[in-house]
Amino acid sequence: MQRRPFLATLGATAAAMTTGARAQEPAAGKKLGWALVGLGSLSKNQIAPALQKTKHARLAAIVTGTPAKATEWKAKYAIPDSHVYDYETFDKIAENPDVDVIYIVLPNSMHEEFVVRGAKAGKHVFCEKPMANSAEECRKMIAAMKAAGKQLGVGYRCQFEPHHRECMRLAKEKVFGPLKFIEAGFGFQIGDPKQWRLRKELAGGGALMDVGVYALQACRYLTGEEPVEITAQEVKTDPVKFAEVDETISWSMKFPSGVVASVMTTYAFNGANFFTAICEKGRFGMDPAYSYDGLKGWTSKPDVKIEFPAVDHFATEMDAFSEAILNGKPFAPAGEEGLRDLLAVEAIYRSIKDGKAAKVEAM
Amino acid sequence: MQRRPFLATLGATAAAMTTGARAQEPAAGKKLGWALVGLGSLSKNQIAPALQKTKHARLAAIVTGTPAKATEWKAKYAIPDSHVYDYETFDKIAENPDVDVIYIVLPNSMHEEFVVRGAKAGKHVFCEKPMANSAEECRKMIAAMKAAGKQLGVGYRCQFEPHHRECMRLAKEKVFGPLKFIEAGFGFQIGDPKQWRLRKELAGGGALMDVGVYALQACRYLTGEEPVEITAQEVKTDPVKFAEVDETISWSMKFPSGVVASVMTTYAFNGANFFTAICEKGRFGMDPAYSYDGLKGWTSKPDVKIEFPAVDHFATEMDAFSEAILNGKPFAPAGEEGLRDLLAVEAIYRSIKDGKAAKVEAM
Repeated sequence: MQRRPFLATLGATAAAMTTGARAQEPAAGKKLGWALVGLGSLSKNQIAPALQKTKHARLAAIVTGTPAKATEWKAKYAIPDSHVYDYETFDKIAENPDVDVIYIVLPNSMHEEFVVRGAKAGKHVFCEKPMANSAEECRKMIAAMKAAGKQLGVGYRCQFEPHHRECMRLAKEKVFGPLKFIEAGFGFQIGDPKQWRLRKELAGGGALMDVGVYALQACRYLTGEEPVEITAQEVKTDPVKFAEVDETISWSMKFPSGVVASVMTTYAFNGANFFTAICEKGRFGMDPAYSYDGLKGWTSKPDVKIEFPAVDHFATEMDAFSEAILNGKPFAPAGEEGLRDLLAVEAIYRSIKDGKAAKVEAM
Repeated sequence: MQRRPFLATLGATAAAMTTGARAQEPAAGKKLGWALVGLGSLSKNQIAPALQKTKHARLAAIVTGTPAKATEWKAKYAIPDSHVYDYETFDKIAENPDVDVIYIVLPNSMHEEFVVRGAKAGKHVFCEKPMANSAEECRKMIAAMKAAGKQLGVGYRCQFEPHHRECMRLAKEKVFGPLKFIEAGFGFQIGDPKQWRLRKELAGGGALMDVGVYALQACRYLTGEEPVEITAQEVKTDPVKFAEVDETISWSMKFPSGVVASVMTTYAFNGANFFTAICEKGRFGMDPAYSYDGLKGWTSKPDVKIEFPAVDHFATEMDAFSEAILNGKPFAPAGEEGLRDLLAVEAIYRSIKDGKAAKVEAM
């Protein structure tokens, strides 16, 4: 995610970036129109408010299956009737020149369908994590977007967050020497037993699919490598609530360099929201690591600090995706990143199911 | 390890214990004579100095295969010739009434032989961890000591250390609610490639046998349970140095209550020396957790602190073993505790070897 200076066609102005770097403003003043597909709590509480702060993105349209939500959002965000769709009329978004990007915020099982339909509508698509319920679905989504010649981004918000980016740098530049081991975990005590996240058909899985992917991601972007072999263990203490999906999973991943990551995820309790990178000459990490705010970094050296002002994760990633499109640059994390996570996720589930070590399939 | 008031035959005096509790002094002024078997760096740098601080133990005899060490120790600790043995003459220790306890500080592979010979010599035996190279050896040692009617203690020094004891209490009394998950690890970058710890025949294994057992122990005494199923993964980045023994192992353990522990050990790098207990209503842990000194405890609640003055781990455990003998009380951790660790260790190695989840064998 390095931003390189870019000379916008219409003239560029230098702008201080949140990361402290300087770059030239792409297509100054231009904001892409974003359509939000799925108006659940994430859209309502995080994404829509973030779209009030973005420099290169604006809320242009909504797609919802709930008429009451449409009414509420139209009023709140001054969205014209012509920019409101439901899941049946969604494909007509192709004819709306005001929509540049479609942001898929639906339950995981609907990601593939709506990304493919978004591709067919000729729009760029930004998709929430996990990208889909299987690697196979990810491949279809990537192929559809490629065929459409449009960009596909995956909503890995931490990859744009300054503490995380600094940790990536510390690992990559070996500031504490070569990375040796990672401890990581993310979980929370899930509430409402009736929510879609506990339905396998909708969510594809449980804690691992929802929050475990953050810890998995951290291991992948700290090492800069793909895991090759995984051993995993699942524990279920509430077989009623978690009848369909995983409750707590603990897994270990080998990376080609010899780095090992010990990772966990859970829907059963709070308190795991961290990663620790153990390097040859010291340690660093974050705790809490994956929340929307209040993130804290730490290192074993008093003179190396990981301290940054808070940023809006969603505004930052939506601006980054918009900028990539405005600049005609490939965006990362793209679909391949989501696919790589799913390949690891599938190995984790396979290891649990078979009770043995699982190789991670190649791309 | 609760100490109960005891009325010593010869009259007792109340004494403040290091843990803050009060108890009556067993056999006031009496110090048991300890024989150290194996005069390596642990004996030299930790145990002998500790025996200068103990209240109920004193260095009475030495057993070594190295004449130069015998000469040095005799001079330094004023040990008479009659109290110096080598591995051939060791059994004559039976005839030395000045020796009450034999402390086995030999390479792991020699533990069984010398505990059994100590039992036959009619002495109480204190054995360094890991207790032996296999559960089978542990069973023979327990049987030999039982037949001799003498006590067998295992050198799990952390079980006597105040920070660890406080953590056990926090877990047991559910001060932060029920325990849900444990992260633990202990490792270090091992030096001299020629040392016995890297020879399978002598050490039985690598990092797991040497330091991994500390992290394993922590999980066992925090849960108060035995692990039932283990998945483990081994990584070797230096196949020359670690040709015979394990370098880095990451494993996950299920406990009957549903607690999961994610644990690691290594001989390849420093920086892992911790445990974290994630409970329903908060967290606590130690880091560093297993060093001889400088231990630090922490909790997620500002008003709950884990702070204690440093104690000499070796002096404390030797006094505890001596007191148990003087009081005629069963000592814990006894041989069964060492056996339980080995059963888990064997499951970890089995999981690695077979590439699948391993059940922990019953006692």
